[in-house]
Amino acid sequence: MPDNSSATPAGLIAQANDQVIQHWFDGRPSLIDVQRAGDVIPELQPHVMLHAGPPLTWDIMCGPMQGAVCGAAVFEGWADDLAAAAGMAARGEFTFVPNHHHRAVGPMTGITTMNQAVLIVENTTFGNRAFCTINEGLGKVMRFGGNDAGVRRRLAWLRDEFGPLLGKALRAGEGIVLKDIIARGLSMGDEMHQRNVACSSLFLRQIAGRMAACDAAPEALSASLNFIAGNDQFFLNLAMATGKALTDPAKHIKNSAIVTAMARNGTEFGIQVSGTGNRWFTAPVEMPQGLYFTGFTEADANPDMGDSTIVETIGLGGFAMAAAPAVAGFVGAGSAADALNYTRDMTEITWASNPEWSIPALDYQGVPTGIDIRYVVETGILPIINTGIAHREPGIGQVGAGIVSPPMACFTQALKALADSVAA
Amino acid sequence: MPDNSSATPAGLIAQANDQVIQHWFDGRPSLIDVQRAGDVIPELQPHVMLHAGPPLTWDIMCGPMQGAVCGAAVFEGWADDLAAAAGMAARGEFTFVPNHHHRAVGPMTGITTMNQAVLIVENTTFGNRAFCTINEGLGKVMRFGGNDAGVRRRLAWLRDEFGPLLGKALRAGEGIVLKDIIARGLSMGDEMHQRNVACSSLFLRQIAGRMAACDAAPEALSASLNFIAGNDQFFLNLAMATGKALTDPAKHIKNSAIVTAMARNGTEFGIQVSGTGNRWFTAPVEMPQGLYFTGFTEADANPDMGDSTIVETIGLGGFAMAAAPAVAGFVGAGSAADALNYTRDMTEITWASNPEWSIPALDYQGVPTGIDIRYVVETGILPIINTGIAHREPGIGQVGAGIVSPPMACFTQALKALADSVAA
Repeated sequence: MPDNSSATPAGLIAQANDQVIQHWFDGRPSLIDVQRAGDVIPELQPHVMLHAGPPLTWDIMCGPMQGAVCGAAVFEGWADDLAAAAGMAARGEFTFVPNHHHRAVGPMTGITTMNQAVLIVENTTFGNRAFCTINEGLGKVMRFGGNDAGVRRRLAWLRDEFGPLLGKALRAGEGIVLKDIIARGLSMGDEMHQRNVACSSLFLRQIAGRMAACDAAPEALSASLNFIAGNDQFFLNLAMATGKALTDPAKHIKNSAIVTAMARNGTEFGIQVSGTGNRWFTAPVEMPQGLYFTGFTEADANPDMGDSTIVETIGLGGFAMAAAPAVAGFVGAGSAADALNYTRDMTEITWASNPEWSIPALDYQGVPTGIDIRYVVETGILPIINTGIAHREPGIGQVGAGIVSPPMACFTQALKALADSVAA
Repeated sequence: MPDNSSATPAGLIAQANDQVIQHWFDGRPSLIDVQRAGDVIPELQPHVMLHAGPPLTWDIMCGPMQGAVCGAAVFEGWADDLAAAAGMAARGEFTFVPNHHHRAVGPMTGITTMNQAVLIVENTTFGNRAFCTINEGLGKVMRFGGNDAGVRRRLAWLRDEFGPLLGKALRAGEGIVLKDIIARGLSMGDEMHQRNVACSSLFLRQIAGRMAACDAAPEALSASLNFIAGNDQFFLNLAMATGKALTDPAKHIKNSAIVTAMARNGTEFGIQVSGTGNRWFTAPVEMPQGLYFTGFTEADANPDMGDSTIVETIGLGGFAMAAAPAVAGFVGAGSAADALNYTRDMTEITWASNPEWSIPALDYQGVPTGIDIRYVVETGILPIINTGIAHREPGIGQVGAGIVSPPMACFTQALKALADSVAA
């Protein structure tokens, strides 16, 4: 039992943890619009790039993130070709800032620039907004380091055709309530990180008729509906924006030991804790253990990368593995029984379970929610993350999927800082 | 172990059963079109009505089926109002024929007349076609005995606007492969009788873009997409037509003890067995045990009704309850553990398990498939059926959902007839 007496440090932490969790339970994230990133994130000026994970510089960036940087520079018209873009980056002509610093999240490389389309999720309880690019689908895509003309054409189509149509359909009616879709998805085999087939389908059900009412040309409408329908992972970016919209209002609750962000830039893993605000606690990222697509091996793999761990931060992904036995197989994490055990392990390091999001296979127990850094350090149990795996070279793309954990050093550093802060 | 020596009656039956199951495994039902029923079922002439279950006459019809008959007569323009329609029916002016006799199936009352739209499912392996009306949604609907102006307007819209648009989208491309959708639905919590939310969503994913490419007016397209999206049970009628398309080619395999149809007309339950061809074995229907919507009790309930038991005939519905723990709660059949037990029980009375349709919660075991009437009589275990429950009065609609079984008398009669036939 946690000590709830406020006279003790443990009591102060318990009260603060409860506040964080209550913010998350009270939050109502809704998808309300799609806009050009530069129009809604004022910091996105020419030559500014948001990226996944904690801060880093070009010289220590991994291959796929460098690939995405170069692709984005050409896409934006800041460089004539990929080689020129690499030269500009090496000369320090781009400003790199974490997505997390500007209310955004991005999967894998997470590169976000001013002329990409972004989903806008508003937490209507607290009034804050979160942003995430639109999931590009599988194959050669920028989030996995792809950067060729096809990748750039798709980004332009998302900005010029798909995004405006989806945005118009959203603005014409109520926002799409994302917690409800996630709740239903958990009863249909999704964990919202490596499996989003149910949520992507349920999202299409809510939006198809609204998109059809927008007077788009039949070919444009058909292509847009087929784009959503053709991508089982379409909802991932919505789940990520949901996580960002939920966690941001609870990022500065003094004394709380709850993790409010986990993010990787391909080089370092970083976490943030509510009681220590915006400070990152970082350590070198690990290599995921997983299954590789035909023709690839671990030798091709880039280490852990992306802001998508925001879904584990709010109790989904690896934490909800019990809801999605098929994922355990896909990421090489074992059988349906193993899936149950991953979720049970996560209850050891979390502060609460979320009654809004329950898992049928665990007698409708809520997902384990709110990683308490004290429990991680005490038990030695690390958060479990379901992740995609990128090729280590720029320009290639996804090579597999697996599971991974943050380095323990992130938690021990954070615990020391929190202890100093609680004592202060 | 079944005796496979062909020298014995048991050996003859085993060989024949294997043939039936092979027909089902080989079958490839695809949704290929939507048409006016009278254009594809030549027997549907004026004053002819197809109905659910084995043959019956007006005087022994239950309330909701009489209600649907009257509603259909007004819809077709054969009677000016419901009272006039009832008079015509009582005077013998309508011809009543089971759907099953004309390659069709219909949920609950199952009333099918010439000017309703029907889904056309072709079993491309054997070239046969099966027909089913389009699921009307919940509330006051003809399949539950609803017959007012709103019910009739919806049937007209399905015929005049929705059906033609869906048909055009289907004819413009490949047929929709229904076994694949069902396989995926089983991993997403559907059992395809009382829960079709995943399959309905997956179907929309396949068809939305194709419907959008048909140059329909935006309002008409939007209404049609919203109609599919707004009905969790939309896929039920597709699952039923899948069952009919699969079972019809295996209806006359001499010596087989496999059930090829189970159907109820609200008064009698009827089964057909492959080794005895088109002969019905009937007994009075039972009352489902279930949960009632607010304001209704078992006193309001009509006994068991509908051709929808074709899904249990092919191993879905109650037989696949383990895939859909949420259904066990919805039909009042207990917990997730009970759901597993229902499916396990059904393995006792079935000839095979279907590797195409596996259940994650049972370590990917295939659904129990092919009810052998000998096993039912020997074990005393009756098929378990998930069913909707109609109000016993015409014009009201659905009042609940539950589970039910066929009367044992259907199986003892059938077994005697099969024994005579095998010996002959």
